[in-house]
Amino acid sequence: MNQQQFPSQLLENAINAFSTLPGIGRKTALRMVLHLLRQKETDVEQFAESIAQARKQIKYCKVCHNISDNDICDICNNPKRDQTTICVVETIKDVISIENTAQYKGLYHVLGGIISPMDGVGPNDLEIESLIQRVASGKIKEVIFALSTTTEGDTTNFYLFRKLSPYNIKITTIARGVAIGDELEYTDEITLGRSIINRITFNI
Amino acid sequence: MNQQQFPSQLLENAINAFSTLPGIGRKTALRMVLHLLRQKETDVEQFAESIAQARKQIKYCKVCHNISDNDICDICNNPKRDQTTICVVETIKDVISIENTAQYKGLYHVLGGIISPMDGVGPNDLEIESLIQRVASGKIKEVIFALSTTTEGDTTNFYLFRKLSPYNIKITTIARGVAIGDELEYTDEITLGRSIINRITFNI
Repeated sequence: MNQQQFPSQLLENAINAFSTLPGIGRKTALRMVLHLLRQKETDVEQFAESIAQARKQIKYCKVCHNISDNDICDICNNPKRDQTTICVVETIKDVISIENTAQYKGLYHVLGGIISPMDGVGPNDLEIESLIQRVASGKIKEVIFALSTTTEGDTTNFYLFRKLSPYNIKITTIARGVAIGDELEYTDEITLGRSIINRITFNI
Repeated sequence: MNQQQFPSQLLENAINAFSTLPGIGRKTALRMVLHLLRQKETDVEQFAESIAQARKQIKYCKVCHNISDNDICDICNNPKRDQTTICVVETIKDVISIENTAQYKGLYHVLGGIISPMDGVGPNDLEIESLIQRVASGKIKEVIFALSTTTEGDTTNFYLFRKLSPYNIKITTIARGVAIGDELEYTDEITLGRSIINRITFNI
């Protein structure tokens, strides 16, 4: 698909735009543009407008750094949520995933990444200082780590643990174990081993 | 992924926009929007602008109905191309595919679809009348059919053949046969059968 000749510069520009998106090659981009060309002009205008507007106007919550339409996000601002618990995650996607479970009613803290010396990401590149300040305010009772189970995740967990342990709070991490629906036969040994060590009391 | 709660209306609008594209679900749409949020504001503006502009300003060639930046497309306007041969295709995508082979130097005619009674598409919904007029002008020596090998494609070929046969032109269709690189063992019987019937003289 190199050096493809398109019959229109405008078409080519639009294809180039879509090709910058993750996972979108030029063939898919062409299909998307041709799809949009068949839509009503006002619909396509709205399409483009909603994208530009999102980039221009979306803010990040000053407390938890989640995406927000306001300075403080709806989660931090919600008095019905447990204001004493913070769940620490890497990205906004993780917030959305946890929110979708409808099992968590506390607050979040989005680090914006994970400590990764290989990628040149140190503690100062992440929202760690602001997390410590939130804890230092004295209103927080529990901090839950919900980071990746990778070397980088473990490093970050360890770093955060050291920084937060001076404060009088409970520090937990989300449970790791055999996923619901998975068969033991196909579960990797580390996960299975951990699920035995961290076994929980059975109750009905 | 139903009823997913997003932390921002602006985010949700942008995700809804991307979700309207073919083959894009809400998870992929979210990934795309989060990717754009990490880009420079001017880049995202340009992204949105190129899409809106494409829809607003792209024209269709008045002769062959291919996508074009002008009233007459670059192919129809190119004196180096064989102005006596027309290749009839269903969509603009087919024009791009054939152009990429660099094997065809004639003109095109984009029907804008194919005769399909099941989908309520009749001859009058397609650019057939304008094709007949091009042929009737007397400048055309050959018309090549390059439509799908489906019942609808055959119906359209037959309809066009009947309409064009009164004119003194050569009517051909692109060769059907075993694709280059394909093994005979895995080629379907109809294709293989046709490739034997339409065998060509071997030369080195």
